[in-house]
Amino acid sequence: MSSPLRNGDTPSPAVGRRHFHSTVSEKKIRRLNNLILLLRFAAFCFSLAAAIFMATNSSRSPGSPSWLRLHPFRLVFAANAIVAVYSFFAMGFSIWEILKGATLFPEHLQLWFDFAHDQVFAYLLLAAEAAGTVEARGLKGAHTCSSESAFCVQAYISVSLGLAGFAFLALTALVSGFRVACYVITGSRFHL
Amino acid sequence: MSSPLRNGDTPSPAVGRRHFHSTVSEKKIRRLNNLILLLRFAAFCFSLAAAIFMATNSSRSPGSPSWLRLHPFRLVFAANAIVAVYSFFAMGFSIWEILKGATLFPEHLQLWFDFAHDQVFAYLLLAAEAAGTVEARGLKGAHTCSSESAFCVQAYISVSLGLAGFAFLALTALVSGFRVACYVITGSRFHL
Repeated sequence: MSSPLRNGDTPSPAVGRRHFHSTVSEKKIRRLNNLILLLRFAAFCFSLAAAIFMATNSSRSPGSPSWLRLHPFRLVFAANAIVAVYSFFAMGFSIWEILKGATLFPEHLQLWFDFAHDQVFAYLLLAAEAAGTVEARGLKGAHTCSSESAFCVQAYISVSLGLAGFAFLALTALVSGFRVACYVITGSRFHL
Repeated sequence: MSSPLRNGDTPSPAVGRRHFHSTVSEKKIRRLNNLILLLRFAAFCFSLAAAIFMATNSSRSPGSPSWLRLHPFRLVFAANAIVAVYSFFAMGFSIWEILKGATLFPEHLQLWFDFAHDQVFAYLLLAAEAAGTVEARGLKGAHTCSSESAFCVQAYISVSLGLAGFAFLALTALVSGFRVACYVITGSRFHL
């Protein structure tokens, strides 16, 4: 079988690129997909844990504080729950992509969907955690924590877990933002 | 003068790109640079105004609240002041780039510097404004605002201005992030 290229001819960039893509870089694509899945899994775990810690944070004695009566703690719960649900579905999309080699929705839609949600939910989660931190500090200043120390400790833990979730979501937003830029510039979601 | 390309030949992508770049797209580059400068200017104005509004927010009567004694308001002031100073210098870099056609520092350093600072300062500003919002709500809940309404109104205005500054900084981070991705993928900070 003779090559379609004669001696001295240079292959067109598109052909060279596809060849390169199919042989050398299969491993790199898989590695990037696995990285995204790992980051989403970490964000899911931390935000789910933060939501659970906040939701179960009310002391049994009557007249004591409950997270339901404090607006910033409700925001912390809501933001973490939203991020946990989103991360769960996004993990599903990611696993689909790893198994089938294609995105579940049309490629441009999926890439923009991922990036926009990662970025907006990262901002949402950060704002909620900052609000929760101020509220937790305020409780300490009002000496609520001396009588209800378990309540305060659990609130601190929830906020800290949420901040860890934010860190992983912000990293995911960087990677998915890079994928969108790749798609806009080269027409493919992988730059290799 | 004959063209170096014979009939039927296709120009190589590199030559075509450079030609295209120099003739058609000069205007687009200028427009992108102007957009970045405009966003930075807006972020500078809003964050400077927010910092000034917060810094001058203490009532004259003794025993009344001052922003200096409330930690979240100090954070709002500090974050807005940092963003204002950063935006001022970044505008200088941007104007240099528009006038000279090249970045002040080596290109890759400048692009990464811009993007990293835009992104981190956007997160910082958002966290500060969220903290400030909770504190302002807390003052209202503690009935401080009924006797010191001017103090509260000025705090609200400062936080709102800071949020507008955050919005412009987040948009700047998107554009500078796209420039970094362009540079990583194509070796040039402009994709046209």
